[in-house]
Amino acid sequence: MKNYIQAEEWNIIESGFDPHLNKISESIFSLGNGRMGQRANFEETYSGESLQGNYVAGVYYPDKTRVGWWKNGYPEYFAKVLNAADWMGLELKLDGELLDLSLCKVTAFQRVLHMKEGYLERTFTAELASGKQVQVKARRFFSIANDEIAALHYQLIPLNFSGKLDLTAFINGDVKNQDSNYEEKFWDEVSRTQDESGSYLTLRTKKTAFDVITGVKTVVLQNSKTVQLTLDKLPREKFLSESGSVELTRNEGIDIYKIATNLSSQNYATADLLAQAKKTVQAAMAKGFDELLKEQAAAWANKWQEGDIIIEGDVAAQQAIRFNIFQLNQTYTGKDARLNIGPKGFTGEKYGGSTYWDTEAYCIPFYLSTAPQEVSKNLLVYRYKHLGKAIENAEKLGFTKGAALYPMVTMNGEECHNEWEITFEEIHRNGAIAFAIFNYIRYTGDASYLKEYGLEVLIGIARFWKQRVNWSADKKQYVMLGVTGPNEYENNINNNWYTNTLAGWCLKYAMEAAEIVKEEDPEQYQQIVAKTSLAEEKEFADWKEISANIYLPYDEEQGVFLQQDGYLDKEQILVKDLPASERPLNQKWSWDRILRSCYIKQADVLQGMYFFEDDYDLESLRRNFDFYESRTVHESSLSPCVHSILAAKLNDGDRAYEFYLRTARLDLDDYNNDTEDGLHITSMAGTWMSIVEGFGGMRVKNDTLCFNPFLPEQWTSFAFTIGFRGNQFTIKVTKDEIMINTTTKELLHINIFNKLQPVQAGETVINYRGLLV
Amino acid sequence: MKNYIQAEEWNIIESGFDPHLNKISESIFSLGNGRMGQRANFEETYSGESLQGNYVAGVYYPDKTRVGWWKNGYPEYFAKVLNAADWMGLELKLDGELLDLSLCKVTAFQRVLHMKEGYLERTFTAELASGKQVQVKARRFFSIANDEIAALHYQLIPLNFSGKLDLTAFINGDVKNQDSNYEEKFWDEVSRTQDESGSYLTLRTKKTAFDVITGVKTVVLQNSKTVQLTLDKLPREKFLSESGSVELTRNEGIDIYKIATNLSSQNYATADLLAQAKKTVQAAMAKGFDELLKEQAAAWANKWQEGDIIIEGDVAAQQAIRFNIFQLNQTYTGKDARLNIGPKGFTGEKYGGSTYWDTEAYCIPFYLSTAPQEVSKNLLVYRYKHLGKAIENAEKLGFTKGAALYPMVTMNGEECHNEWEITFEEIHRNGAIAFAIFNYIRYTGDASYLKEYGLEVLIGIARFWKQRVNWSADKKQYVMLGVTGPNEYENNINNNWYTNTLAGWCLKYAMEAAEIVKEEDPEQYQQIVAKTSLAEEKEFADWKEISANIYLPYDEEQGVFLQQDGYLDKEQILVKDLPASERPLNQKWSWDRILRSCYIKQADVLQGMYFFEDDYDLESLRRNFDFYESRTVHESSLSPCVHSILAAKLNDGDRAYEFYLRTARLDLDDYNNDTEDGLHITSMAGTWMSIVEGFGGMRVKNDTLCFNPFLPEQWTSFAFTIGFRGNQFTIKVTKDEIMINTTTKELLHINIFNKLQPVQAGETVINYRGLLV
Repeated sequence: MKNYIQAEEWNIIESGFDPHLNKISESIFSLGNGRMGQRANFEETYSGESLQGNYVAGVYYPDKTRVGWWKNGYPEYFAKVLNAADWMGLELKLDGELLDLSLCKVTAFQRVLHMKEGYLERTFTAELASGKQVQVKARRFFSIANDEIAALHYQLIPLNFSGKLDLTAFINGDVKNQDSNYEEKFWDEVSRTQDESGSYLTLRTKKTAFDVITGVKTVVLQNSKTVQLTLDKLPREKFLSESGSVELTRNEGIDIYKIATNLSSQNYATADLLAQAKKTVQAAMAKGFDELLKEQAAAWANKWQEGDIIIEGDVAAQQAIRFNIFQLNQTYTGKDARLNIGPKGFTGEKYGGSTYWDTEAYCIPFYLSTAPQEVSKNLLVYRYKHLGKAIENAEKLGFTKGAALYPMVTMNGEECHNEWEITFEEIHRNGAIAFAIFNYIRYTGDASYLKEYGLEVLIGIARFWKQRVNWSADKKQYVMLGVTGPNEYENNINNNWYTNTLAGWCLKYAMEAAEIVKEEDPEQYQQIVAKTSLAEEKEFADWKEISANIYLPYDEEQGVFLQQDGYLDKEQILVKDLPASERPLNQKWSWDRILRSCYIKQADVLQGMYFFEDDYDLESLRRNFDFYESRTVHESSLSPCVHSILAAKLNDGDRAYEFYLRTARLDLDDYNNDTEDGLHITSMAGTWMSIVEGFGGMRVKNDTLCFNPFLPEQWTSFAFTIGFRGNQFTIKVTKDEIMINTTTKELLHINIFNKLQPVQAGETVINYRGLLV
Repeated sequence: MKNYIQAEEWNIIESGFDPHLNKISESIFSLGNGRMGQRANFEETYSGESLQGNYVAGVYYPDKTRVGWWKNGYPEYFAKVLNAADWMGLELKLDGELLDLSLCKVTAFQRVLHMKEGYLERTFTAELASGKQVQVKARRFFSIANDEIAALHYQLIPLNFSGKLDLTAFINGDVKNQDSNYEEKFWDEVSRTQDESGSYLTLRTKKTAFDVITGVKTVVLQNSKTVQLTLDKLPREKFLSESGSVELTRNEGIDIYKIATNLSSQNYATADLLAQAKKTVQAAMAKGFDELLKEQAAAWANKWQEGDIIIEGDVAAQQAIRFNIFQLNQTYTGKDARLNIGPKGFTGEKYGGSTYWDTEAYCIPFYLSTAPQEVSKNLLVYRYKHLGKAIENAEKLGFTKGAALYPMVTMNGEECHNEWEITFEEIHRNGAIAFAIFNYIRYTGDASYLKEYGLEVLIGIARFWKQRVNWSADKKQYVMLGVTGPNEYENNINNNWYTNTLAGWCLKYAMEAAEIVKEEDPEQYQQIVAKTSLAEEKEFADWKEISANIYLPYDEEQGVFLQQDGYLDKEQILVKDLPASERPLNQKWSWDRILRSCYIKQADVLQGMYFFEDDYDLESLRRNFDFYESRTVHESSLSPCVHSILAAKLNDGDRAYEFYLRTARLDLDDYNNDTEDGLHITSMAGTWMSIVEGFGGMRVKNDTLCFNPFLPEQWTSFAFTIGFRGNQFTIKVTKDEIMINTTTKELLHINIFNKLQPVQAGETVINYRGLLV
């Protein structure tokens, strides 16, 4: 745990330069715009420790897997988002002396992530070995107004000397992934162009043959006059540069601008890439850095208006939640249904930038509330597009007749992961994908999604569960053997309550969905029946029979659902009685010891009760919460948010707040000592959920927004903005009141503490103390 | 499955040369003498497919592991017996034309493994592209009379020409392991010497720094006159050669002799290796090939006298069982307690030449009966020497206070395997090691082993089980969670009946052993108590409590022990109802599907009932046998033997014979299409057990040999020779009679069908039909 980031409401601030923190800051200050992004590496040469990272969404390399012991069914490759060309590189020599912060005395160093406007600013004064001092201010951003553009303004002022600056501005595509399994480089150079419009380097990924062109126009201004640069035309592979020399005058600055684009063959014909890159760079150049930054600030203002959270009385909390919202919006903008949300976004290589069930279980609620409906829909359509591959994945494991098993980790719909206990057995992901469809429709009311896309997916998933269970002659119920639940501290278990519950629900929901489509659009329904070869009568009968008779382990004595068969055989020493020296378990204990212990990485029974909360009364929830929370070590960053929401529901505000704290500043404070690998993007959505669904108690029931808010003692107030079915709502919660500002023109009703309240455009103030029983 | 090996009682014969079978034959015709060995590679150049293999026992390399996802506790390396220098290489050019069977027309090719005398003979006629024909006869062996020596006689006759032979005889140490994880070579050259006494190449293993010197003296005779060879002194690394030219006369042969030694720094000071190698080679040279071969035949005659099995009426069966006995004796001779039995012996690289529980569970019974007591004792002492490492292994997994967990796979006592479900969870191996101590004492009567070595091991093992179980508040018994039994088609299961049974037994046996030592040698006992810090009262009380209250899953309805918790939840489709196209499951099904099926790789409940057979009545055995056999796919080569023994016990001779057949010719007929990787050495001991313990019904009870024989219908008779407590017994079984020949001078009683029968030196004939009820 670190504590070096200064708290400010809108800004993330690092003051002072500590090389040991540099990789952490590179993660925290990362930039992105959904289409591309990068870690906060320095523009100028830096010979200290750094993890270079530039990424282009959707462009991946199928790295050959590395396994200990091969198991039938393992995928041959693990798709990885590649470390792509670095567009912003500068080499700066002052009278022949290289500017490199690891060789300088650095003062007045500050990195600021301006979240309101969406740019990164770094300022510092460096004293070189020669005694020369320079002052630098660098600002850069990835435009969300035009997601093909990134821009840099780098200003350098010689403080105590006049002299010659030799400047080289380059694009470096000779990069590799730190996590390459066999030390391979993943790019080949295809072509290069350098002319007065800029430098253009086209690289092609090996095997997958994605072409990505990186185009950069560099402009250097001295006293508002352009400094002429020479196109270097060096023979160095995957590297383009231009350079020039300037006579600097003491205290007079020089301004370096780089406007860059990354375009890929996903979006343009290969033959058109160069022309398009030139066009894009030229159009951006015509606007110029300042105008582009204005557009950026405006676009971000719009994002904030859609989904800001305001916390009064706690600057650190305010900063943290904005940081999480900012990073989520930097990672995914929902414009392209081929893209998804890697667990580390554009901030690191870990997890390969691939898609996990995190998207459906944690991110979708965030985007549903804070972005246009299309954004969440695209996340759903992403899985629809992978349905064919999911059916193939299932076939590899012996399933038949259109059963679909979505992959645990994927880039293009094919499975990438290869640990048998996860790849083959952590099948609950299939349920999360079905639940996301339900959740989307519940929130948006857009049931037409079913006939367009959803029903086919639900049929494939239902077929999978149908084949995956078996009749137990012993239990006289359907059982599901050999699974791994979201609590990955159990492997290959039988009758995971969460997975069985989810499977039963999926089977029912698939039938409901079929009923809806059949009713609303019989013709389309018949097309889907034909396309999926659905044997309605027989298959529905099976699904009904299974969902009605699926075994759900339960302990009568304690009145709790059992995480899996045999859970009560474990030694039940609670987490509070576990010495601190033993934690985190995943670093201190061998895997078998973790597996046979009662300790839970993230409590999947509670996850299930959260998904299907209306099925359980509060007392049942309380019993299960008390039972599982006391056994949960929260060693998944995805864990605390659900506990926070449930604690809030159980009126345990203190604990709700405590769980919230565990994730809110996870990366800002480097809580788990792993921020240097990248940020925990998907768990940031969980933090948002803790506030909105936890403290705000927001739900959608029967097409109505519901709130059961409470205010953490530590705060004066909090407010969040959500979009719901075409209207925007800002809900502000103070100690006694809830204030609702909405854009709606008609009178609407929303539900506060189970009582319908009329709201209309403008502010409605409700004293909710009186509503509490 | 192949069927190209000709059946002959004493010889393994391949007639005709089929390059596609070459790697299989290289395995089958392997040679070894416990200290070193090699695959049956050709002496002369062969450019066709071949797996080169030369091995020196106990010399290993810690190859860096390759894992998918690292788990806490995994070992950093996997020790591998190295492919060592090839001492027998010959390059033969006839008028400049290379002799290479893959470029020749080969006729009259025959490979014969002379098992009676212990040598390999290969003869062929080759017609080169030029039309030149040569006839070759090559014989070679690894001496068991002097296990530092190997010898080759290679005779070549030009059949249809006179001409020049250019001959190069070499040692090639520039070899690598096919299974190297990162394509590394494992040897460095240390030194080389070439003089009139021979060529000597010393190589050192990287990391482990074992020095191995390979010394070879080559002699070429033409008409009984020595042909002068030139020491080549080439700069080629790890390669030494000498060469010469001979004018050959049509139909007149030339004889090439190579006498080789491999000595390692395990047995000699590094500085002495060269002098010792020279001495060894010279002494062997002084005897000459023919004399050495005579010694070899005599030594093998002795081996056969100790442990031959004679089958009348079935040549294929006779050949097969002799092949198995021969290979077991080639692999392990018991002279060195630092050595053990790799699953593939000296016949291939697979499994790294490391030690598995195969040794204790399958090999020890063979060596107990067919070799001097010291041989089995050395196998036990091997584990005693590793006790410290076993305690360290357990500590890595969180165990304390002297608890010992022996490794699943090891070379020096450290764990090498890294699949969590096996490395950390297949802990039954610990029980097999305790059982082997019991078995050794039961057979030999040598209880003094306990005070010398055994008790310390048993204490370490008992402590492990004590810590590994936990009290289940639910079951009100001690349970053992998260294990993998011998049936590796289940992973991470709870309450594996076999493991729990074995653990309970180990706890009791450790206390019995302590009692025995305490009584027989109180002083030594106190030393052990002090050395192990044994808190007798407390620890014994715990062990007693646990062994009396360990949970053993049982199904009342069917009257069978349950392989593990929840086994009856599985879909119970019997193996007979499984389509042949689905098998073998390990090639056709994904791992998760195997895991959740009811199918069993090898039935561990039956393994347990075999170990502790006196605890179960015949009806219980029959119920369990019928239940588990019908679910067992025998996809472990170690599986059928136990089924064979138990079927025999249940008077089901047909099935006993059927199970026996599955292993008897496993390698000779390449049953599983994997003989090319090497032979299934350890499962060969299972075949021996099928005959002796199955058909012969041999047991030792109350210090008495017992037999319950039956004769398979397909045979006229069978006879096996065993040693027991200083006497030798040959038991011959015919349809009606059992004939016992023994060396004993006093009158002894042995038990036939539960009736004591007096036997004395010479033959005792018993008509056993009358004894059968």
